[in-house]
Amino acid sequence: MEKHRVLTGITTTGTPHLGNYVGAIRPSVRASRDKDIESFFFLADYHAIIKATDPEKIRQSSKEIATTWLALGLDTDNSVFYRQSDIPEILELTWILTCNTAKGLMNRAHAYKASVQANQEANEDPDFGVTMGLFSYPVLMAADILMFRAHDIPVGRDQIQHVEMARDIAQRFNHHFGEVFTLPSAVVDDNVAILQGLDGRKMSKSYNNTIPLFETEKKLRKSLNKIKTNLLEPGDPKDVDDSTVFQIWEAFATPAQVDDMREKFAAGIGWGDAKKELFELINAELAPARERYNQLMAEPEFVEDELRKGGERARATASELLDKVRHAIGISPLT
Amino acid sequence: MEKHRVLTGITTTGTPHLGNYVGAIRPSVRASRDKDIESFFFLADYHAIIKATDPEKIRQSSKEIATTWLALGLDTDNSVFYRQSDIPEILELTWILTCNTAKGLMNRAHAYKASVQANQEANEDPDFGVTMGLFSYPVLMAADILMFRAHDIPVGRDQIQHVEMARDIAQRFNHHFGEVFTLPSAVVDDNVAILQGLDGRKMSKSYNNTIPLFETEKKLRKSLNKIKTNLLEPGDPKDVDDSTVFQIWEAFATPAQVDDMREKFAAGIGWGDAKKELFELINAELAPARERYNQLMAEPEFVEDELRKGGERARATASELLDKVRHAIGISPLT
Repeated sequence: MEKHRVLTGITTTGTPHLGNYVGAIRPSVRASRDKDIESFFFLADYHAIIKATDPEKIRQSSKEIATTWLALGLDTDNSVFYRQSDIPEILELTWILTCNTAKGLMNRAHAYKASVQANQEANEDPDFGVTMGLFSYPVLMAADILMFRAHDIPVGRDQIQHVEMARDIAQRFNHHFGEVFTLPSAVVDDNVAILQGLDGRKMSKSYNNTIPLFETEKKLRKSLNKIKTNLLEPGDPKDVDDSTVFQIWEAFATPAQVDDMREKFAAGIGWGDAKKELFELINAELAPARERYNQLMAEPEFVEDELRKGGERARATASELLDKVRHAIGISPLT
Repeated sequence: MEKHRVLTGITTTGTPHLGNYVGAIRPSVRASRDKDIESFFFLADYHAIIKATDPEKIRQSSKEIATTWLALGLDTDNSVFYRQSDIPEILELTWILTCNTAKGLMNRAHAYKASVQANQEANEDPDFGVTMGLFSYPVLMAADILMFRAHDIPVGRDQIQHVEMARDIAQRFNHHFGEVFTLPSAVVDDNVAILQGLDGRKMSKSYNNTIPLFETEKKLRKSLNKIKTNLLEPGDPKDVDDSTVFQIWEAFATPAQVDDMREKFAAGIGWGDAKKELFELINAELAPARERYNQLMAEPEFVEDELRKGGERARATASELLDKVRHAIGISPLT
């Protein structure tokens, strides 16, 4: 029997930070080892170019992200790890789906509507600054998903609509041309670990409050020291619920270590000492992967080989489905 | 020095008729032999699926059109003859251009605006029945053109805007990422031979007034007999300027034959006799190609091999350009 397929895309903009690690990368690396499911992970570089137009940044981010996932031990034998741009079938399917998607569906996409609203509030043309990439992006995402007949798509709440659109597009196609596509479902895990950033808000590139995942020990220590705290002195009992230091501690500690730190807070541990312990804890978890990361970044052949291997496996699956799709719509050899 | 490149797409909907032959196919077959230019001719099957959703019709039309062009002697050594869907690079480039095209540009496309207007007049939603394929089609056409760095695009007046859009998209891309694309120009030949159909209007599938190019002799004779004429009897002098029979005669006759028929009209040739002569003239030009066409339709291996050969040559050119484009936007291997 075919295994349950789970598909996750990683947009290649920016450098991985602790929030990405806790919320997405660490659980994904674990899932990659699960023998009961078939996981597809891909570098969504053809999504990245919608948002980012600096080629060096796209290139650097792809390299950093791929290297990060591998340094952290992604199991690339039990899962399929590939670069979207290595699978030309996805772009071909994107066009086929484009021809089978109502424009009205795209008009209703949240991201597009938000752009239109912002333009209207600024008295601009509704489509000012909107590219066809931003407008058509849900079709590419549908192709990403449908190409591999994925069942489950783990997403945040803001992405549910896109998975539903992929489902709509698949249903429309299946209705016209026969049952070619598997209907995907969005899986929203409200327990996804959300890490706080330096300022106590969610750690996010857009808030400029991140701690890079694989910066040097020295820099990591410095970053952690920048976490915003209150003015309580050493000796003053401290509230764990109100503390970013404690929130990050919880994301890395064992239950016993959490209890231990809770007691120390009550006993009035100083912020400097708490941050020092936090550094030791995080560093112990990350140090081996960081070393591997630095090695791989210096010699990217291994990472490239892994991506090629994953790409070949992904293409084998993709080209089989694309053949079916092409045949269904009447695009096929004469003989 | 690189030869001047001319690119022509043929949408694979419908069966070739005499109007296609006189207006497009015959001049293209001649151009395919011109050693001074490099002609690209392609079956635009990924355009066809925008308009036609019956897979059997798409398949049959692709076969008939490819076979027609080859039966008529297209020089596939001196020109490049390929099927759009055999060149995945085109669809990949389509997505890249999608990300670099303003939505506002597509909002202004004539074909889309005409749909919106028709919907508004019918009190429908402006985008009723509009697919993303119809809306995005100028981007695919830009990819078709820019992929092969074509200089000249011979088009009818209704297609000038699309070539200008391809030019706009190329300029925008070159401005951001460096000079990658050649800027194409629309070439409108107002002397394109337009054949009249059975009812005297332009011969066109949409008027249902066509004469299929390679129907049997018997059927061709029957079709020609259906051409609308006036009620003048044999012996009555006839006006050549007012006659579809004469208009079609001119498209196939030598200058001497045209003069000869003009005299016969003045001398009152009967419609039946004129149509009989017209049949002989057309049939003499088409009979050898028709025989070849019937052979090739029965054994499509030759046509398929020709398309594969052209596809390989087209892909060699396409993949070279795509590598440059990918590198320019930051999509490239790590090593």
